[in-house]
Amino acid sequence: MKPYFLGIDLGGTNIKTGIVDNNGEILATETIPTEASEGPEAGIQKMCQSAQEVFTQIKGTWDDIAAIGIGAPGTMDLSTGTLLNPHNLPGWQQLPLKKRISETLGRPAILQNDANAAAYGEYWVGAGFQSESMVLFTLGTGIGCGVIIDDVIIEGKHSHGAEAGHLILQMQGGRQCACGRFGCLEAYASATALTQRARDAMNDHPESEIHKALNAGEKLTPLLLSKMASSGDRFSHDIIMTTARYLGVGIVNMMHVIDPDLIVLGGAMTFGRDEQPLGRSFRATVEQEITQRAFPVPATETPVRFGELGSKAGFIGAAGCARLAQRHSAET
Amino acid sequence: MKPYFLGIDLGGTNIKTGIVDNNGEILATETIPTEASEGPEAGIQKMCQSAQEVFTQIKGTWDDIAAIGIGAPGTMDLSTGTLLNPHNLPGWQQLPLKKRISETLGRPAILQNDANAAAYGEYWVGAGFQSESMVLFTLGTGIGCGVIIDDVIIEGKHSHGAEAGHLILQMQGGRQCACGRFGCLEAYASATALTQRARDAMNDHPESEIHKALNAGEKLTPLLLSKMASSGDRFSHDIIMTTARYLGVGIVNMMHVIDPDLIVLGGAMTFGRDEQPLGRSFRATVEQEITQRAFPVPATETPVRFGELGSKAGFIGAAGCARLAQRHSAET
Repeated sequence: MKPYFLGIDLGGTNIKTGIVDNNGEILATETIPTEASEGPEAGIQKMCQSAQEVFTQIKGTWDDIAAIGIGAPGTMDLSTGTLLNPHNLPGWQQLPLKKRISETLGRPAILQNDANAAAYGEYWVGAGFQSESMVLFTLGTGIGCGVIIDDVIIEGKHSHGAEAGHLILQMQGGRQCACGRFGCLEAYASATALTQRARDAMNDHPESEIHKALNAGEKLTPLLLSKMASSGDRFSHDIIMTTARYLGVGIVNMMHVIDPDLIVLGGAMTFGRDEQPLGRSFRATVEQEITQRAFPVPATETPVRFGELGSKAGFIGAAGCARLAQRHSAET
Repeated sequence: MKPYFLGIDLGGTNIKTGIVDNNGEILATETIPTEASEGPEAGIQKMCQSAQEVFTQIKGTWDDIAAIGIGAPGTMDLSTGTLLNPHNLPGWQQLPLKKRISETLGRPAILQNDANAAAYGEYWVGAGFQSESMVLFTLGTGIGCGVIIDDVIIEGKHSHGAEAGHLILQMQGGRQCACGRFGCLEAYASATALTQRARDAMNDHPESEIHKALNAGEKLTPLLLSKMASSGDRFSHDIIMTTARYLGVGIVNMMHVIDPDLIVLGGAMTFGRDEQPLGRSFRATVEQEITQRAFPVPATETPVRFGELGSKAGFIGAAGCARLAQRHSAET
């Protein structure tokens, strides 16, 4: 159903581009490597080439594309659509990405934070479909977050809204975070933190199979811990469930502020989601922590679900944000 | 300027009632004791009598009063306007307050959480006037909070939005909160927590003047600590500034989620606000903690101000919420 929207999910590793219709159905999609080190000019060219490529697939005219949404990693200024100093795209500073993409492709564009875009995707047509409010956590190297309330994305005055990865959960004696500060959720529950906590604790657990794996040349990663936990290694299982408990505390803090209809967990570090016993245990452990720490009514009535759109959430959501911006500008 | 709105701030100690005009100007006001132990029926009668009393002062007709707003302590169900189990009003359970007040006074009414109402008051005509988004902390026996973004109050799906007093700041080894859980902001930075921390630490400070005061029969209260601090007692001063630092951590967490235009501090425990050196030190210490713990741009650009409406914020805000609800219903 027209109009169509083009979504671009610009990541440190890949650019995922897709065209979706007015109901969020995917019409065409493509993934290419970002090769961020080649710099922003090459990157913009790649994004536009990829947009042309998916456009060719739908055999339409550019007039069918009502607007373009770009999801990108921060820091950024959402009001002007400028990348400021994105940590995952070194050298792409002070880049007026919205303006450049819009000028090159000849359609209106918007820039959105990648986690906000993914959250909007899940809210629009994924796990949050038909909910009024939703908080998404994206679990990976870092922890991203997006908050939607009544079809409004909480962007913040300085484009720093919904930074749940940096909620301070341990103000005294907290672990150091990649951001340099102490006690952040991300310092406890990200993939990086999981690996680090495993490294810190494994020598106290000589019985763990993890030692054999490392001696056999494997690397200590969340994937290895996940495999070991799934094949019965107690240490690996416990350290993953501790991650779930830390994440649960972060979720409780978001519930204390937003009190949303539901919580959605997305990103790479979801341990097989509901399809795997480990993923189901992970989610159940998060829920236990919520039961212990949140107020009784929200604790009982706020479901925690895994995302449904996987790695497509970013470009679908970016396209959805473009659609949302267009509707708002039509109203005013 | 008509229409007028009637605001009722129902507290555990007092009922404050006022009529404000469409610009938030106060036309009439009255304060009477709640005498909550007499029960909800007597309470409703008092609220309606007080409303009649302030109405008499403006010499108008009831048609001039477009709507009534009631601010009350939680827990409550905002969608039905029902008090569920308010801790400060023992025995007032399952009370359909909105319906009862509306029926008795013959005008449309809304119920709002007291901290949300106070926040809306400051946003409408106080410290947050002409800001787009604002977070209010009310500092007293407990810590209340209200969040307004673009003229929308963050109420939450289960009427549990903006409960910043229970943000978990110390997930491991945290102090116990009045809510029964551990590590909440309120367990560190409320008036109760300040007194408790002073009691815990004072024996390590035999040099403090606080011992003489207590021996002379004074009670250990935030007011005593405040007096002692203002007259140069180092121990009392330090323990108040530690409170400011804890509050700063809670504020940083709200900034990480909402990233508002500004932060407003209201309530009884504001140490003389900007009129007193102690209040100015308190605010400066909060700002120092924000500088150390928040992201650089919001840390630099988010002002922390004391509220401007004092104890009037509640009824003005309740009236403002009634006005807001009326506007929304007119739009739809």
